[in-house]
Amino acid sequence: MTTALPPKGMRDFLPAAVAARERAVATVKRVFESFGYAPLETPALERLDVLTGKYGEEADKLIFRILKRGEGAAREEADLGLRYDLTVPLARVIAAHRDLPRPFKRYQIQPVWRAEKPQKGRFREFVQCDVDCVGTPSMTADAEIIAITYETLAALGFEKFRISINHRKVLSAFIDAAGVPATLKYAAIRAIDKRDRVGRDGVTRELTKLGLADATVDELINILFERYARGDFEYYVEVAERTALKWPEARAGLAEMKELRRFVDAFGVPAKVTSYDLHMARGLDYYTGPIFETIIPEAGVGSVTGGGRYDHLISLLGGPDAPATGTTIGLERIIAVLEEKEDGVTPSGYADAMVATYDAATAEEAIRLARDLRAAGFKVEVYLDPQAKLAKQFSYADAKGIRFVAVVGPDEISDGTATVKDLKSRRQRTIPRAELIAYLSRELAAPPPEK
Amino acid sequence: MTTALPPKGMRDFLPAAVAARERAVATVKRVFESFGYAPLETPALERLDVLTGKYGEEADKLIFRILKRGEGAAREEADLGLRYDLTVPLARVIAAHRDLPRPFKRYQIQPVWRAEKPQKGRFREFVQCDVDCVGTPSMTADAEIIAITYETLAALGFEKFRISINHRKVLSAFIDAAGVPATLKYAAIRAIDKRDRVGRDGVTRELTKLGLADATVDELINILFERYARGDFEYYVEVAERTALKWPEARAGLAEMKELRRFVDAFGVPAKVTSYDLHMARGLDYYTGPIFETIIPEAGVGSVTGGGRYDHLISLLGGPDAPATGTTIGLERIIAVLEEKEDGVTPSGYADAMVATYDAATAEEAIRLARDLRAAGFKVEVYLDPQAKLAKQFSYADAKGIRFVAVVGPDEISDGTATVKDLKSRRQRTIPRAELIAYLSRELAAPPPEK
Repeated sequence: MTTALPPKGMRDFLPAAVAARERAVATVKRVFESFGYAPLETPALERLDVLTGKYGEEADKLIFRILKRGEGAAREEADLGLRYDLTVPLARVIAAHRDLPRPFKRYQIQPVWRAEKPQKGRFREFVQCDVDCVGTPSMTADAEIIAITYETLAALGFEKFRISINHRKVLSAFIDAAGVPATLKYAAIRAIDKRDRVGRDGVTRELTKLGLADATVDELINILFERYARGDFEYYVEVAERTALKWPEARAGLAEMKELRRFVDAFGVPAKVTSYDLHMARGLDYYTGPIFETIIPEAGVGSVTGGGRYDHLISLLGGPDAPATGTTIGLERIIAVLEEKEDGVTPSGYADAMVATYDAATAEEAIRLARDLRAAGFKVEVYLDPQAKLAKQFSYADAKGIRFVAVVGPDEISDGTATVKDLKSRRQRTIPRAELIAYLSRELAAPPPEK
Repeated sequence: MTTALPPKGMRDFLPAAVAARERAVATVKRVFESFGYAPLETPALERLDVLTGKYGEEADKLIFRILKRGEGAAREEADLGLRYDLTVPLARVIAAHRDLPRPFKRYQIQPVWRAEKPQKGRFREFVQCDVDCVGTPSMTADAEIIAITYETLAALGFEKFRISINHRKVLSAFIDAAGVPATLKYAAIRAIDKRDRVGRDGVTRELTKLGLADATVDELINILFERYARGDFEYYVEVAERTALKWPEARAGLAEMKELRRFVDAFGVPAKVTSYDLHMARGLDYYTGPIFETIIPEAGVGSVTGGGRYDHLISLLGGPDAPATGTTIGLERIIAVLEEKEDGVTPSGYADAMVATYDAATAEEAIRLARDLRAAGFKVEVYLDPQAKLAKQFSYADAKGIRFVAVVGPDEISDGTATVKDLKSRRQRTIPRAELIAYLSRELAAPPPEK
């Protein structure tokens, strides 16, 4: 039944999927808030003049546009569009609320919409998760964003990941030093950013295609992919000082990197998760300072977080002039990785226990038992059809992954008991009503027995 | 600066507002899940053919339509629309996932979009909150929805509210009994539904405008607004039996109402919050059984919840034939009422404490102290600009509603202390670092002292 599917590239999330997504979001929010970052929410729609012309023509084509409404309106004309990212709305909010305390530390976890060609793992509606600090040029802020990245991934249960750190000014000086003309700088940065997908040789090819001289390309590749580099900071500084220190940009960038390094330490980010990489570029043009991204090697999905300092972007996007730094946490990728890791152990998203309805005459007793269990803090559903056979009711609980089913038939009612079946162990026992809550507490706290 | 505002009828939610909304949503979800209802999420967009033609021409005009995308597409044509409610997506999901366990007990809390004329308290983007049970004709399900309504409002802290209950078949029989022609039945129901806004006399006028004979109108008004009715069930039954029992619809409806009444009791809904009202109508055409809505008199905002049984709607909306019942919880109205009640006592949405940065040389110590406090479970932000004067940092904390500010300058560092100011009491003390966590735990647990 094709017509019942959601629109192309979009997804329905059934209860178990929502539960898994909410668990990840709750963890992320807890970490953000522990650093004093607070939630911002903006409308799904923005005026088209706010959305377009901000990220180039290609992105503009991917915006979902909304027709004008109402009787008089030229109804073939669009005036609104669906949010394409969370940075444009952030800039608009900062422009609209000039009295926000600065630095403004906010996070935002909301869906964005992009009319890209749907493909595996890429959707037209997906949740973005941004955490940004607007209003300070200090490296303490960049270090804090790196610390939040670390704490978030650790809280999500990841053990092996690497936060790659570089500085746009240092990278830029290398590109100058190698003799790349200024007009090709951003194209070169985008070529270097492809390294994870195409490797060192691929980057060589991409740079050559830009029309750069072979000597320039070799020079750049040799510096960026310095064979002795292992991501440690001392070596990063040594190479940078050896090759680019006559460029003022490199000197400014290196000074900031040294500060950043100290603060990252103070925030307690273990040295083993950071990697200082001259060849890490980030594809977007607007970064002006430190840049960072996270790779989870086992996940094989490219970077799961990415960000950096973007001191002029807020004003470019229509906000006031404000230095800013932040990162995107790739929540959809992370949830996909977690789902693979946790396959089979995720809870169903449904109730702890179900009370079956023995028949119409005893339905009220079933409802009352469910109420007692609920009052004790359990999630309890009662089967809502007194006509249904008990076997059908048990299959229903099984299908939903509800572990315990309690039955109160005429015998149980006269004995003051309930019969409880554990659908995991398939064991069934008749228990005095007064002991039922203690029994369920004990069983639900313990790991479920094997079948 | 007009251009920085969100689109007409839509809102930015700054941190304190998000915090208040999230608190209400968390309470509602907790109650829903305690009854075994599980979350469903669907895309913001639906295909236009799914959305339109479901709620009449007026509603169709209020749908935000989205232009086709891509090079080849006729770009003035719309193929998608923004979700108008949560019932159409529910019907689509039930049609798409035939293997869902039935009854399917789901809740859905997501925004919907309607291009209505914006006015006070009415928005073009607002969160809807629906809880429905699909797949059983049993009155136990309707009683459960009423119980969920009661438990939700109680958990939100409301004390005085009234859940008004009626049955569409009983109401329908009264309308027949009074001699209203079948073609005018739904118009009469909509007229009766206006009683809260226009009163008994207003309903009389509305019914008269439909072209009904004066005697018919008087008959209907006399029954519905029976002067001795006080909302108690026995009187509801007595009036219904006295005036409409020869209509088979009324007999069927009354039998269901008697069952419903028993189950509502079993679910533990106190008799004092229910009111059985012959004149309660609900405006929508599609109800087929019990209907219910909640009034909070002090709020003065009309009904804050509304729902009922709609046994044929799912198939009308493109799903399979499935009996269903459910309610909308008017979350936006409820949040507005709560905000008025809680004005001034809502938390800021920001951190518990801030560590100021004394100067550049001691910034790392500030970062480390913040880290220690965070590890102890506090939400702690560190002021991210070592150049800023302390006075500016204190105003920042004040503006954000952060209660405690800790400073570690050179003296504190050499003494192993921190100076902590309570911005509520304006008291300041210097405390050994080892005692700081205990101090903050104690102070934050206690209610803040008066200034």
